[in-house]
Amino acid sequence: MSEVQIPATVAPDAVDAWEHEVDVVIVGQGVAGTCAALEAHRAGAEVLIVERASGGGGASAMSSGIFYLGGGTAVQDAAGYEDSAEDMARFLMASCDPLDPNATLAFCRDSKDHFDWLEEQGVPFERTYFPGKAVYLLDTTCLMWTGNEKTWPYREVAKPAPRGHKVAGQGENAGSEGMKPLLQRCIDEAIPAIYDSAVIALVQDADRRVMGVQVKQSTGTFFVKARRGVVIACGSHNLCKELLDEHLPLLTETSEPLAIPSNDGAGVRLGMSAGGYAVSMDGLIPTGSIYPPGQLINGIIVNRNGERFVAEDVYHGRLGNFVMEQPGQTAYLILDSEVFAYPENPFAKHQLVDGWETVGEMEAGLNLPTGSLVRTMAEYSEDAAKGEDRRFHKHPDWLKPLTAGPYAAFDISFDKSTYLFITLGGIKTDEQGRALDLRSNAIPGLYVVGASAAHIPRTGKAYASGLSLGPGSYFGRRAGRHAAGANWG
Amino acid sequence: MSEVQIPATVAPDAVDAWEHEVDVVIVGQGVAGTCAALEAHRAGAEVLIVERASGGGGASAMSSGIFYLGGGTAVQDAAGYEDSAEDMARFLMASCDPLDPNATLAFCRDSKDHFDWLEEQGVPFERTYFPGKAVYLLDTTCLMWTGNEKTWPYREVAKPAPRGHKVAGQGENAGSEGMKPLLQRCIDEAIPAIYDSAVIALVQDADRRVMGVQVKQSTGTFFVKARRGVVIACGSHNLCKELLDEHLPLLTETSEPLAIPSNDGAGVRLGMSAGGYAVSMDGLIPTGSIYPPGQLINGIIVNRNGERFVAEDVYHGRLGNFVMEQPGQTAYLILDSEVFAYPENPFAKHQLVDGWETVGEMEAGLNLPTGSLVRTMAEYSEDAAKGEDRRFHKHPDWLKPLTAGPYAAFDISFDKSTYLFITLGGIKTDEQGRALDLRSNAIPGLYVVGASAAHIPRTGKAYASGLSLGPGSYFGRRAGRHAAGANWG
Repeated sequence: MSEVQIPATVAPDAVDAWEHEVDVVIVGQGVAGTCAALEAHRAGAEVLIVERASGGGGASAMSSGIFYLGGGTAVQDAAGYEDSAEDMARFLMASCDPLDPNATLAFCRDSKDHFDWLEEQGVPFERTYFPGKAVYLLDTTCLMWTGNEKTWPYREVAKPAPRGHKVAGQGENAGSEGMKPLLQRCIDEAIPAIYDSAVIALVQDADRRVMGVQVKQSTGTFFVKARRGVVIACGSHNLCKELLDEHLPLLTETSEPLAIPSNDGAGVRLGMSAGGYAVSMDGLIPTGSIYPPGQLINGIIVNRNGERFVAEDVYHGRLGNFVMEQPGQTAYLILDSEVFAYPENPFAKHQLVDGWETVGEMEAGLNLPTGSLVRTMAEYSEDAAKGEDRRFHKHPDWLKPLTAGPYAAFDISFDKSTYLFITLGGIKTDEQGRALDLRSNAIPGLYVVGASAAHIPRTGKAYASGLSLGPGSYFGRRAGRHAAGANWG
Repeated sequence: MSEVQIPATVAPDAVDAWEHEVDVVIVGQGVAGTCAALEAHRAGAEVLIVERASGGGGASAMSSGIFYLGGGTAVQDAAGYEDSAEDMARFLMASCDPLDPNATLAFCRDSKDHFDWLEEQGVPFERTYFPGKAVYLLDTTCLMWTGNEKTWPYREVAKPAPRGHKVAGQGENAGSEGMKPLLQRCIDEAIPAIYDSAVIALVQDADRRVMGVQVKQSTGTFFVKARRGVVIACGSHNLCKELLDEHLPLLTETSEPLAIPSNDGAGVRLGMSAGGYAVSMDGLIPTGSIYPPGQLINGIIVNRNGERFVAEDVYHGRLGNFVMEQPGQTAYLILDSEVFAYPENPFAKHQLVDGWETVGEMEAGLNLPTGSLVRTMAEYSEDAAKGEDRRFHKHPDWLKPLTAGPYAAFDISFDKSTYLFITLGGIKTDEQGRALDLRSNAIPGLYVVGASAAHIPRTGKAYASGLSLGPGSYFGRRAGRHAAGANWG
């Protein structure tokens, strides 16, 4: 196992010349960096965007384009859902146990306005709603349920509402339709950007103030001075083998990162180099959803002891976390003939094991302990007939006695199927997007936003689709304004 | 920072002679080891207890003697509380997000019976109840509220019940009154034990089966063969500087471990040596309770930004976790003249900062950002007048507008006051107490219970007093029976 490479910072007196001087340097032009650049520029700061790729967009443009937003957005209104900042906060506070409750509360309080701002920039959102179960949609429908809002215990502490707002783009990379107008704004407002340019080190003085960056291009390296601040917004560490080895030992060879080539952890490693504290580094969203189709949620999921271990209606990333922790990382989706269907998730490779006439034969066929599956299914079906799931509180909508043989099982094991993953950890920050050290002291002049920062949820068990683009764009804006010396709200 | 020392395992062919041969070796004679020994012995196994101290009891005997139990124990009945295994499970499942839900469910299901078993062994419990707020009681009163049962969001997902069952002993080390009868049973039943004897290595064959232990006494070392299994029950790593440095960087110099000298992490390190997976190692209970007296919960707690960050009525360990994460690890307890009192917690050293006529003067006196505390207190008092706490959902019982000047503040900062701490992490185990590896495969012949194993709560935010002795004694019993080859229940 090789060591995580943390770049050394450069002392100001080691800088022979500043190639450029600006107020705010933005590292990375995904959604967080772009929003930071727009706000800093509009607050009067001289901005320079430094981007490793040959153009803007980042992983945001490759994503499915879902923003987690609520509190009564125009789309929620159109779909007939009454949501409030309070309910959104109740849900996130209860499910995420966030490191900074006040940042989470601010995100909820401003969420509706933030949606309006995104629309004003030209990000397209339809006034449409999808009521079913899907991981993401291939058409332009906007609003859907993307998290654990209706799962237990969260449905008991906050009024559930759909909060996944997908930009009106086709296909699996609809995020690009959201990035296009934001990037166009940068061009329209003449915000300078340099491409094919990697930030390889931060310049930091003895008082820990970050004063600029060292940039590497194919022709050499140079320094850029940032009079007011540096905003790191260069994505996740999904491809950083050393950080994965160190913090995520449960990842298997069969797991595949959702990433673009620059997701090598440069952001979190630069942040650490200046004293930023990397937190939630064991946070992971491993997704191998069993749905669509939604009817499969009527089945049960058991481990190799023949025991259930999670409510089957949870968000797919929460399910993946639980599967990952089971004995042998083994799990089976168990169906009877009435709910049987093939999982349509094109990425997960859940294999049909076999079909059997009786539960006893299935138990033997899956090599489960004698009597275990028979007992588990009898208890579950008895509960389901009464419309309750005493063990894991699966929502009554998905409770059906599994008594209509023949039966079938899909192997959804973590190390047999394919789970796509996204890392959640990163630098600890406050509601202004400022980078914090071990004891939560802000590092002067340094901001970290987007996937380089720790997410609101500490673990993938609490994630909902859209909690990267939603908070990423929001805290990007706040960091941009704060770095420019402007107030928020 | 020095490396964590993991002892090497010994191959069987490197064992020249077995000094003793038994069925089950129990490492440590605290509550978990003692219960394991009794059950293994009663199931017909030949048992040897190996204890480092000169007598049994361990940290359990030094503890305040609280067992977290429920589901309708005789004490709960006598106090007029209807509790059920189902409600206990709903609470623990929602608050602890346990690594092994089935182990947690089994603990809840058997909790009432386990209480009866403890009484049958002679552990004394009164039929008495304390309705107030305390960290622990100095008299022999039994039942009290010891966790987050009545705090949000848990009170909304499970019917709250008091589940802290304290043994009928006086003073702060009442745990000894619980250990005495258990140790006496070991003597009465002639279970062999050797003292002043440290297990320094496990004997493990090429198939990973644990076959015995290497014991060190003042006169030298020798090997003991365990035909059926080794049960590691030798406590926490509260004193293991290397493990603390590696996993708990937020601990301060002012924090003091609650520990006996043998809590050097021998258990978790022995478990790791044989391939056991150490989990939740960043789990911590840092306790610097603001109560008693309970009236102080009517105050609010703010960080150095003048913002609240937690409901003030949470369990003291949960509060400590939140304080630890605040900027500068700084926090103040803010009181008005109607709720003012001195905290009576004899261990925490919360200092009175000063008194002020107005909130504005207090804000200035505490060096909080201008307007921050005034805004926080105005919002809080407005909410409290309506009997609701929109931000953090403190229970209405503790909501009182803080408008009766003069005002006072206590400094409850993590690095200024003294927080006592207990670590929560350890070896991952299943409901039989078997040690599990990275992928949750059981290591043949190895069991880990008590504080050497990972607790049910993953973090101190979910802890309740009694969740060491309760599950420790229960899973100790199960490990003992399983190691002896007997079934459970």
